[in-house]
Amino acid sequence: MRLKVRPLDLDAAGKTIIILNELDALELGLHPLDRVCINDELTAIINTSSKFVKRREAIVYEEIREILDLKDNQEIDIKPIMTFKSKEHIRNKIDGRELEEEELKEIVGDVVERNLNDLELAAFITALYIRGLSKKEIEGLIKAMTETGNRLDIKRDIIADKHSIGGVPGDKTTMLLVPVIASSGLTIPKTSSRAITSPAGTADRVEILTNVELEKEEIEKVVEKTNGCMVWGGALDLAPADDLFIQIEHPLHLDPMLMPSILSKKKAVNATHVVIDIPAGVGAKIQTFSEAKKLADDFISIGKDLDMIIECGVTFGEQPIGHTIGPALEAREALNTIMGNFSYDLVDKVTSLAGILLEITKKSDNGKDLAFKLLKNKSEDKLREIIEEQGGDPKITPGDIEIGGKTLTIHSKRHGKVIRVSNAQLAKLANTLGCPKDKKAGIIIHKKLGETVKENDRLLTLYAEKNYKLEAAEKKLEDMEPIVVVDNLEKYMLTKKFPEEKVLFLRT
Amino acid sequence: MRLKVRPLDLDAAGKTIIILNELDALELGLHPLDRVCINDELTAIINTSSKFVKRREAIVYEEIREILDLKDNQEIDIKPIMTFKSKEHIRNKIDGRELEEEELKEIVGDVVERNLNDLELAAFITALYIRGLSKKEIEGLIKAMTETGNRLDIKRDIIADKHSIGGVPGDKTTMLLVPVIASSGLTIPKTSSRAITSPAGTADRVEILTNVELEKEEIEKVVEKTNGCMVWGGALDLAPADDLFIQIEHPLHLDPMLMPSILSKKKAVNATHVVIDIPAGVGAKIQTFSEAKKLADDFISIGKDLDMIIECGVTFGEQPIGHTIGPALEAREALNTIMGNFSYDLVDKVTSLAGILLEITKKSDNGKDLAFKLLKNKSEDKLREIIEEQGGDPKITPGDIEIGGKTLTIHSKRHGKVIRVSNAQLAKLANTLGCPKDKKAGIIIHKKLGETVKENDRLLTLYAEKNYKLEAAEKKLEDMEPIVVVDNLEKYMLTKKFPEEKVLFLRT
Repeated sequence: MRLKVRPLDLDAAGKTIIILNELDALELGLHPLDRVCINDELTAIINTSSKFVKRREAIVYEEIREILDLKDNQEIDIKPIMTFKSKEHIRNKIDGRELEEEELKEIVGDVVERNLNDLELAAFITALYIRGLSKKEIEGLIKAMTETGNRLDIKRDIIADKHSIGGVPGDKTTMLLVPVIASSGLTIPKTSSRAITSPAGTADRVEILTNVELEKEEIEKVVEKTNGCMVWGGALDLAPADDLFIQIEHPLHLDPMLMPSILSKKKAVNATHVVIDIPAGVGAKIQTFSEAKKLADDFISIGKDLDMIIECGVTFGEQPIGHTIGPALEAREALNTIMGNFSYDLVDKVTSLAGILLEITKKSDNGKDLAFKLLKNKSEDKLREIIEEQGGDPKITPGDIEIGGKTLTIHSKRHGKVIRVSNAQLAKLANTLGCPKDKKAGIIIHKKLGETVKENDRLLTLYAEKNYKLEAAEKKLEDMEPIVVVDNLEKYMLTKKFPEEKVLFLRT
Repeated sequence: MRLKVRPLDLDAAGKTIIILNELDALELGLHPLDRVCINDELTAIINTSSKFVKRREAIVYEEIREILDLKDNQEIDIKPIMTFKSKEHIRNKIDGRELEEEELKEIVGDVVERNLNDLELAAFITALYIRGLSKKEIEGLIKAMTETGNRLDIKRDIIADKHSIGGVPGDKTTMLLVPVIASSGLTIPKTSSRAITSPAGTADRVEILTNVELEKEEIEKVVEKTNGCMVWGGALDLAPADDLFIQIEHPLHLDPMLMPSILSKKKAVNATHVVIDIPAGVGAKIQTFSEAKKLADDFISIGKDLDMIIECGVTFGEQPIGHTIGPALEAREALNTIMGNFSYDLVDKVTSLAGILLEITKKSDNGKDLAFKLLKNKSEDKLREIIEEQGGDPKITPGDIEIGGKTLTIHSKRHGKVIRVSNAQLAKLANTLGCPKDKKAGIIIHKKLGETVKENDRLLTLYAEKNYKLEAAEKKLEDMEPIVVVDNLEKYMLTKKFPEEKVLFLRT
């Protein structure tokens, strides 16, 4: 069918969407969300409108206009696409069938080409979540996702990498681990993500110190020169399908593709030796040791099939790492620590995980010791070298890093010990303060688990760029207790009484 | 946040969608598909654009513009909606938890208010399909779906109704059953759907004879006067959630809500006695007797809880009903049959199902006999009465019904017996000919299962309104054999041989 194009001055979040008159669609036997081929060239998903699109007219969003370089009123030809293999594969997965590598390739290919509509993608993610993925499926997805993306072109026999499954705020481990590993002589081309809902992603933190949006060739040059890099992976199209799946997974709060997602990105940088950080405990993504063990076993075994040596470190994940949350504050803490002003839990985490990498790459029999030496003696220079090569100021000091000017300090109302520091509440509080968008917003945590607190000691200091966000955070604190301090627990076993709603304990 | 509105001259298929600048969204902590409340009044789903929407600007689709009566450049206030109960319920269903009636009510309420985004709806449908629905959930959904819609206001002690789970083309049973039942003195306010992908829905067929898009009050008047009606349910908002669920289920080819969907519509017309047609067999929705029995048991038992007496008829579903497919052809066949020119399988199906209704309503101990008498003696007058009351010509004759002028007849290439008539292939063929949009398009089936065929006997006649559709159907026939005629089966056990791809049998 030939149609006259009317471009809409609006994008469709990357999707190729064309809107037809309802009757034209019916004449072609098409319904909303069916697919057409435009000019025998581009697959597009249709919507229909009876009122706003005339017969034989088509409204196209910016994506289609740009790809086909269409002008207003230009004629296009559309043909219905009636059968669609990926759709059948998705249906099979919904019905509980294990998918073959070829089938996963077709799905991933269509995801990257934007040929699947949102309903199909959501159904696929939901089915993967409910039905689970077999080892064969995970490996098939990793291959398909790597093949449909770019790969870093770095020629080294050993390429080290590190990844955390996430979930713990304030985790600036990567910012120290990369310089430690790179200063050992190993190669570590680290790509990281930005935060979606968390207060900061590693790319957000590093961006405080230097540029993180580099082209593929620039990254290869940085790694060639310094053995390492710390860049945002999003600009590289390393596994574009993963980014597109995340766009569906994230609003649904479903994460069935944790392993393919992580390992496809490792494969895309040609990693040979990988340490995976699995933060575990109450308030972390992984709650129990047995869950952590199962996940680690899967990582190791799938790594083997993909020619990657993988080891996993299960780390204490029940409170934030170090004393800060928020891009600028965390970058400052990382810089302080690498300059010798240690946050000790951070140092232990960095040297433990770096140690694993140094051991599996045969750099050392006692990796943690070597890591600690490198951290103390060589990593700062290496960090500054990487900062410089990525386009930042190598002389940056912690004092150069600006922090939000609107502040509020929370003091303890009682003497006692810290028995809980809530990851979830602190992350939400940091979001309310403006993280990750407001980079100077964030939280300093003055007291952590087990520490002794005197009445009126500082517990938290909040930083915001904007007053109304500080006020919103203050309001949010009324329903929160991100740091719980108790004394004489044995005297206060009754914490609430109903119907009287008064809190007798914790918030007095 | 206050924003200036720019209305987009385009609808969003009924959804309330607002597009924000990406940075404004981030400032509010929002991501695509999150929800906002506009002017403390309307919940809307956001998309974001960095390029086409300026800071502090908002593009709204027609739905929002209309509901809030917005003008270009008008200021609106938006507030993020951060927690959303329905979303949590859906997540619980995904995780395999049975949902409570209250939770289903919240979901259905949000579906009707268009507060759930497509991803959430697709995830919900997929989860319902994979996890299944408990009896409690089915009943909860029916209640919620009925409560959120209109109900016909018909005051009779007994209200009969009929429904088919569908899947068999050419099924014009309802067009005869309604006049039969109404002429018995029982009340049967029948609402039907239009075809989505099938060649014809009952509303499409009836529309050939009379008007089917009536207002609620008009329908009540027709039923008051004639004891029956045959109208399109879509205009009535009887269970609007069902229609919205179907918009998601249909593109996914998932149908987890068969029972809530059917019974909520029966409840909305206050049906007290219902017969459910379950076509079964190879090529039907239900394949085996045990599946049919399970479905029937569920219908009966849930009906009991909802104060409906339900019986189910399992009918032979392995070939189309009667000899025609397509709205006009089927209306003509129905009219012919009611005038005494019987299609016998159709008559048997009508009288069997009507008989069940006459028995469960205590009209007769031998319902089928009574139904046959009513069909022969009274139903034509009743049909014409209903046609007239709904605004059609009561004197319409089969000859008045126009059929598509482009025709093609398919002849048998051999002598033998019909051993297969394919529902799926004939439905697809009818779609290719233009059904359901081209109402005069369709197929006459000259020979049915078990009939003897001589070489060159007519098997099918195809009708189209447009030549190119007839040609497309002819082309499609090259890969199809909708009617299979065989002779001396015992001599042709080898049907194909590979690598030589020649078909030795069936298509010679």
